[in-house]
Amino acid sequence: MRGGDGGGPEGGGVSRRQLLGLFGAGAAGAAVGAAGGASVATALANAAGAPDPARAYAFHGAHQAGITTPAQDRLHFAAFDTDPSLDRDGLIGLLTDWTNAAARLTQGLEVEEGGAVGGSDYAPPADTGEAQGLPASGLTITFGFGPGVFGAGDGASDRFGLAARRPPLLEPLPRFQGDALVPELTGGDLCIQACADDPQVAVHAIRNLSRIAFGRATLRWSQLGFGRTSSTSTAQATPRNLFGFKDGTANVKSEEQAAVDEHVWVAASDEPSWLAGGSYLVARRIRMIIENWDRVQLGEQEQLVGRSKGAGAPLSGGTEFTEPDFAAEGPTGAPLIAPTAHVALAHPSANGGTRMLRRGYNFVDGNDELGRLDAGLFFLSYQRSPQQFIDVQRSLAADGLNEYLKHVGSAVFAVPGGIAEGEFVGQALFA
Amino acid sequence: MRGGDGGGPEGGGVSRRQLLGLFGAGAAGAAVGAAGGASVATALANAAGAPDPARAYAFHGAHQAGITTPAQDRLHFAAFDTDPSLDRDGLIGLLTDWTNAAARLTQGLEVEEGGAVGGSDYAPPADTGEAQGLPASGLTITFGFGPGVFGAGDGASDRFGLAARRPPLLEPLPRFQGDALVPELTGGDLCIQACADDPQVAVHAIRNLSRIAFGRATLRWSQLGFGRTSSTSTAQATPRNLFGFKDGTANVKSEEQAAVDEHVWVAASDEPSWLAGGSYLVARRIRMIIENWDRVQLGEQEQLVGRSKGAGAPLSGGTEFTEPDFAAEGPTGAPLIAPTAHVALAHPSANGGTRMLRRGYNFVDGNDELGRLDAGLFFLSYQRSPQQFIDVQRSLAADGLNEYLKHVGSAVFAVPGGIAEGEFVGQALFA
Repeated sequence: MRGGDGGGPEGGGVSRRQLLGLFGAGAAGAAVGAAGGASVATALANAAGAPDPARAYAFHGAHQAGITTPAQDRLHFAAFDTDPSLDRDGLIGLLTDWTNAAARLTQGLEVEEGGAVGGSDYAPPADTGEAQGLPASGLTITFGFGPGVFGAGDGASDRFGLAARRPPLLEPLPRFQGDALVPELTGGDLCIQACADDPQVAVHAIRNLSRIAFGRATLRWSQLGFGRTSSTSTAQATPRNLFGFKDGTANVKSEEQAAVDEHVWVAASDEPSWLAGGSYLVARRIRMIIENWDRVQLGEQEQLVGRSKGAGAPLSGGTEFTEPDFAAEGPTGAPLIAPTAHVALAHPSANGGTRMLRRGYNFVDGNDELGRLDAGLFFLSYQRSPQQFIDVQRSLAADGLNEYLKHVGSAVFAVPGGIAEGEFVGQALFA
Repeated sequence: MRGGDGGGPEGGGVSRRQLLGLFGAGAAGAAVGAAGGASVATALANAAGAPDPARAYAFHGAHQAGITTPAQDRLHFAAFDTDPSLDRDGLIGLLTDWTNAAARLTQGLEVEEGGAVGGSDYAPPADTGEAQGLPASGLTITFGFGPGVFGAGDGASDRFGLAARRPPLLEPLPRFQGDALVPELTGGDLCIQACADDPQVAVHAIRNLSRIAFGRATLRWSQLGFGRTSSTSTAQATPRNLFGFKDGTANVKSEEQAAVDEHVWVAASDEPSWLAGGSYLVARRIRMIIENWDRVQLGEQEQLVGRSKGAGAPLSGGTEFTEPDFAAEGPTGAPLIAPTAHVALAHPSANGGTRMLRRGYNFVDGNDELGRLDAGLFFLSYQRSPQQFIDVQRSLAADGLNEYLKHVGSAVFAVPGGIAEGEFVGQALFA
């Protein structure tokens, strides 16, 4: 008598959400492999921002979804502290439960059989229910392990017996010039990135995964992002950040297979082997002082960025995707792109060829006591080594944009490789 | 050489955003009157959440847009304090500037001529630029006046000379049982509600209007909503709140012209006459303790609400839109809908026939120090008199849902009637 139906009369045990997840995606030909890169479905996401709600990405594959997957429009990100009582078996249990739930959620299913309304009247529902009737909406769920899981970092103990398996590169990030980190927005033992085209679907995922963790891991900090600031596919239009500039033009795109392999995935030949096919995730909550930025002259804004504010072309000329020419000079003999411009300092040529895959989001979280919007960029980057981020961030110490930025949150995670059917995320770590 | 173009080579003075706003909407037949209610465009918004990005609502009309307009998917709401130095002429200036900007923004134009990149290199851009390339996205901007504008409320002075014109019904809301109001999230002299189908467009509007107010009014509090919890048109599927239930099934819909006239619009025969065609807006930030709610048995959740969690049908039977039968009894002789169920206490029959038009949004703003999501409902209701809200809220004092709710923010505003071409919002107030 009680289905999870979104609209019509109540039916049997299969909800509309389930139907859309199982059949809608298939019928539309929108189910794509997580590791596959570009797809038919990708083309449905256009500049006007109307992706196909029924599209579903495979959860199982060679890599976790949500990295090279075409960047979805909305984000809910969560970092967790493991509870002091959690032991190795408990951690494995949590990861297993999270994996099983994520495999279902990403296909548009409820968090477990029974769901929001199919269980007993005398038990709390298995699923919190706010996504009933909503299709998969391109949801991806990506898991990561912070240094604390390996007994590294302030006050961490090796209660999981994993210290010897810690990736040598995984440790708390060094302090950078201009850091104004708030402890409550920094760090975390575990992380979950939920990206979707419908924010209600992303929030539903984090809420239910957080609920599953009750007594085992506690939400440390979390962040909603309302609009992507990166493209991870050549089929996506470049979005704008809250400085009003196109962001991520030179991002590693999923179609650049060689670059993805070189800069994003941990190789089988890298240490440790359990992380092969994975990546390192750096998360930074970067507050933008947009009210000050908005008082800067247009010409100076463009000089600071090194690109035009309209088309996003480098100041050395061309169109958005023209490679910047740092040697090009203007009539006075000065370089058209200043050596301290953001695009120059962030460019691979200034950083030993380093690139990374960015997956950031714009955020606004109310306002401060001065009436300034608490707005900015929730920066997410995936790279083969945290050193790639560290190198670029150090290069950016000379960036004139820093006057308008404040890094208030920071975290780094090792993101295990893809999950095979029947496995839990990070299983190789415990082998 | 520098246009506000979203993608291609840089062109002339008309941006893609402008083109989409002016021609895209017209070509798609999606430009609809603000006061017109249902429209062709409405049908484009379906349960799967893919409204036509090009749709634009008329800014001028008999009523302000954003009230009976089909509820858009995303919200950015802002409340402002007027600066102590602002006088009557300054307030008129601000309202004029806001009106001119809003008339452009809602049509997919930049905030003023010149926009993000069409002005001088040696001046800050007129528009902050993050919406370049984005179409109108159904943006509506709705303005309201708080009690402070009329010299009412704590510490307010009558520096605008408007005390005699205060609507007698406009005063700070009384204290309700269970209120846990935070001053920083409460009150405000002026408010702006920006609703759109693309959150970047709503954020862009509030940011630019806030910028225009610099030195005249300061952001007091602001709130993003990621998903609507109300339908204001019969063509819209009923959304779900974060309790997982359909919300706003019995909402006043724009198609019910008689109910809209009776319950939403201030009539010409009401006092004061300058508010005719307007409404009263109540805003409440209602934190939901969702972690506790999620531990409640399904049957108890449904008893508390008085509806099924799946289809949203009243527990007295039928489907979502079946009228609840509060007299219907179960086999034991107990009423199927408890007299203290939310649906019973909020029902017009329990409140002298009172209804209102709800326009709320789900929100999640990070988490608290216990790891609980700072999540809930940003409640917005429009009514002919604040007494309608007061009556229903007092009735809800017996609501069992209160155990899972905390009202932390509250405000009330008089929302002037529609704006004619060449007028500024609330002009009749100053006549």
